[in-house]
Amino acid sequence: MIDIFTTGGTIDKVYFDALSEFQIGPAAIPDMLRENNVHVPHRVTQLMRKDSLELTDEDRETICAAVAASEATHILVTHGTDTMVVTGRVLKAIAGKTIVMTGSMQPASLRVSDADFNVGFALAAVQTLPPGVYVAMNGMIFDPEHSVKDRAAGRFRTEA
Amino acid sequence: MIDIFTTGGTIDKVYFDALSEFQIGPAAIPDMLRENNVHVPHRVTQLMRKDSLELTDEDRETICAAVAASEATHILVTHGTDTMVVTGRVLKAIAGKTIVMTGSMQPASLRVSDADFNVGFALAAVQTLPPGVYVAMNGMIFDPEHSVKDRAAGRFRTEA
Amino acid sequence: MIDIFTTGGTIDKVYFDALSEFQIGPAAIPDMLRENNVHVPHRVTQLMRKDSLELTDEDRETICAAVAASEATHILVTHGTDTMVVTGRVLKAIAGKTIVMTGSMQPASLRVSDADFNVGFALAAVQTLPPGVYVAMNGMIFDPEHSVKDRAAGRFRTEA
Amino acid sequence: MIDIFTTGGTIDKVYFDALSEFQIGPAAIPDMLRENNVHVPHRVTQLMRKDSLELTDEDRETICAAVAASEATHILVTHGTDTMVVTGRVLKAIAGKTIVMTGSMQPASLRVSDADFNVGFALAAVQTLPPGVYVAMNGMIFDPEHSVKDRAAGRFRTEA
Repeated sequence: MIDIFTTGGTIDKVYFDALSEFQIGPAAIPDMLRENNVHVPHRVTQLMRKDSLELTDEDRETICAAVAASEATHILVTHGTDTMVVTGRVLKAIAGKTIVMTGSMQPASLRVSDADFNVGFALAAVQTLPPGVYVAMNGMIFDPEHSVKDRAAGRFRTEA
Repeated sequence: MIDIFTTGGTIDKVYFDALSEFQIGPAAIPDMLRENNVHVPHRVTQLMRKDSLELTDEDRETICAAVAASEATHILVTHGTDTMVVTGRVLKAIAGKTIVMTGSMQPASLRVSDADFNVGFALAAVQTLPPGVYVAMNGMIFDPEHSVKDRAAGRFRTEA
Repeated sequence: MIDIFTTGGTIDKVYFDALSEFQIGPAAIPDMLRENNVHVPHRVTQLMRKDSLELTDEDRETICAAVAASEATHILVTHGTDTMVVTGRVLKAIAGKTIVMTGSMQPASLRVSDADFNVGFALAAVQTLPPGVYVAMNGMIFDPEHSVKDRAAGRFRTEA
Repeated sequence: MIDIFTTGGTIDKVYFDALSEFQIGPAAIPDMLRENNVHVPHRVTQLMRKDSLELTDEDRETICAAVAASEATHILVTHGTDTMVVTGRVLKAIAGKTIVMTGSMQPASLRVSDADFNVGFALAAVQTLPPGVYVAMNGMIFDPEHSVKDRAAGRFRTEA
């Protein structure tokens, strides 16, 4: 069983006409897994609806506690991209689980979005990688300790 | 470097108005990888444009020869779903490479399609699994020797 | 009240995985009008599910009879593009109604399709034009008696 | 020739990852008309990129002046929905032209958006209606003097 925790981020942004703005809405991932005909056993829990720039230390503790408390050894976390590696470094305190983080540069609600691809990519990574914490973005697997989001280039890259 | 071979199948079907019908067009995967901001080194080769029900033994030999001749040890093959496991069994003759097959139930050209998700899923699987031949569909990894496409259920499943 | 009759054509093609082919499915227009937040009073009736190349004289009589029998004076007909003008000429026998025909070059189920635009265009035309029969395609209004589908160019054009 | 002026609004919102927010981008309408295979002669001018709640009296004068100065008698204006009727009332000072305003409740960049449909609808209205100013939304044609956007209901409606 794969335990999926959602925290918000770009992937879950939808447009609210009554507010004339985009906000983080319900987690995109349940509809996404159904539409993509996914049959691997899983459970989805929405932990929070936050832009990752707004995540506090307490939020990271909440995420960490939820992952640690899960009986599952395969954990997928969807997360805003801006501070994904920061949360990833905190999650490294948890031993014995394969923890894969992903998100998207464009909301899942857009016509052209990397959300479906990235979640597919992460869902394979979480089933196949050994215990540890990984960032699954841009069709690559990164170590959160040695990677950064390069905002100007619009992608993640390895950094010593 | 990941060597990607395309053979046709549902994933590559597009609508030709002048013919009033859908046919297999150019491989969907290059645009897909670009739109999804994929940065892992790869190369794409279109081997054929066939529905997998029409693949002959000679076609399977062609696919096998291309995979064997590649200097890459990580190979992704996009393929129609109907005979994906048949080709997968033939590919088992090749040792020392991680070969992952995927495709989709709905063309990549459709508004609702499992193509992006499946290719993302397969692209992680090919980077993380040990040498062998795998079918990556429905968010799961199957052994082509012990799996079938269940047409009625619209999904792959394990079979002894 | 606008009476909408659907007859099939490219606009209604969907992919059936179990058959490995596209076929004309349920009319696309009810979901389309709901998704586009359309509030003009209307009713939708699916008359047939046919490629317009396969429409017979009897089919055209059926369409004509349904339009003539409707108590509405504003009628929208969705139809395959190949013989849209042929049916349009038959409908000219009906006096006193504004009858607008439309369809699409790419199925409504595709990511890039002219279906939504064309139906929107036709829905305004049917509310604003005087009685007569019109083909509403390519952002233009044509007289079926003096227009043809130019297959090579992928568009309709006026012809003397 | 139809002269199309864009002013911004929800229809033109796109997601800028580097800012983690949606902003009004380039006008959506040129790509939209091309993708929808529109062949009616037209010209597109982007006048401004503003949420309609931020439009000032000076902005409305700018829009009015551009419409008045156009040699075309058929004018389409894309505009945010919140103050569309306000600008429409200002445009009523212009005589002898058919001026149709439209926009969308969901950005054209979204998977599910009313943008294509509404622009199609407005493009027919502008070709068929007599001189005057009209709001073309929700598959209906409104007089800006006697209509409002009902934010709670997410639609326009007539008001005495």
